Amino acid sequence: MFSGCQFSLYPMSDDFVNVILPAIEAMGKPDDLRVETDDLSTLVVGPPHRVFEVVTAAYEAACKAGGHVVLSALFSRGCPGEPDDPICTPDGPAESFRQRQPGPTTGVEVDAQFSLYPLGISSYMSTIAKVVDETRESGALDRSKNFCTRLNGDLVEVMTALENAFNSAARDTGHVVIHVTASKGSPSKKA
Amino acid sequence: MFSGCQFSLYPMSDDFVNVILPAIEAMGKPDDLRVETDDLSTLVVGPPHRVFEVVTAAYEAACKAGGHVVLSALFSRGCPGEPDDPICTPDGPAESFRQRQPGPTTGVEVDAQFSLYPLGISSYMSTIAKVVDETRESGALDRSKNFCTRLNGDLVEVMTALENAFNSAARDTGHVVIHVTASKGSPSKKA
Repeated sequence: MFSGCQFSLYPMSDDFVNVILPAIEAMGKPDDLRVETDDLSTLVVGPPHRVFEVVTAAYEAACKAGGHVVLSALFSRGCPGEPDDPICTPDGPAESFRQRQPGPTTGVEVDAQFSLYPLGISSYMSTIAKVVDETRESGALDRSKNFCTRLNGDLVEVMTALENAFNSAARDTGHVVIHVTASKGSPSKKA
Repeated sequence: MFSGCQFSLYPMSDDFVNVILPAIEAMGKPDDLRVETDDLSTLVVGPPHRVFEVVTAAYEAACKAGGHVVLSALFSRGCPGEPDDPICTPDGPAESFRQRQPGPTTGVEVDAQFSLYPLGISSYMSTIAKVVDETRESGALDRSKNFCTRLNGDLVEVMTALENAFNSAARDTGHVVIHVTASKGSPSKKA
């Protein structure tokens, strides 16, 4: 099963290069992942839990550099059409799933919004409704907006809720995508 | 048919507020659209062509303020589950489609990557392949990446290619989503 992420970090700062590059390095040089950066995003390919781990580490490092920093990320699993991977084949739905519990909090408070796309099935709206309900139980759910769902909480709580949503939806279809925008330190954040 | 966009502008600048707010104002106060901004994104609801027009105008204004500026946008049409719109009902596929030609160039050169999600149909991969092929004919296609497709060119050429892709895919299914990341002025842009 081919899974991975394209993500970008946006520090609203003149010094953005010196926030982004150390944040990418905070992922380490993981042997079990493929990591490639271009001018638009960084690709991470590997097992879903590891992908969420290193993307969270990169965003945490960028947030701790200070100021207003946004993460924009696309997580995909089971895509049947990846151009450069011969082992990439369509998958059936995942057989098992367990809700992960968040690890230790990071002290970084974020607001986020995500959209979930279970592909190739006519019943995708009920998959989305079920998964958003599960997100409510995680405590990270904020509210629905047009085209997306808001989350908030500690960075690790928000990212764990996303990882659980991603894997939960894979019980209904092999190909699942989540897009998320997370924001720390926005001056227009409502109290 | 309910259609609209959630978009965010990310100026990599200490002065980001003074880039974002005038860019949002550059959309004008269109009577035919619903526009709402919160701390994560700006929502525009209205007919697809008008939505693309005003989002392009906002991003063009932000780009012309100078520096490295990113647009992250989600365009959606035909979503059957919008929480706050009683007229929002599932649509069948669109009956007709014509390729729009780009308007006058803006002088703003951008790189972009997009992902297209035709929802609710098992044949979505062939819809994506067909639409990406049409994008090639527009001249804006750069190359495929994992999970997305790169475009480049003048801002108006890139946004017109996206609008055409969005509407072309709607011939196959009522509910179509496009996510796009566009970037102007990145220092890591490869020559």
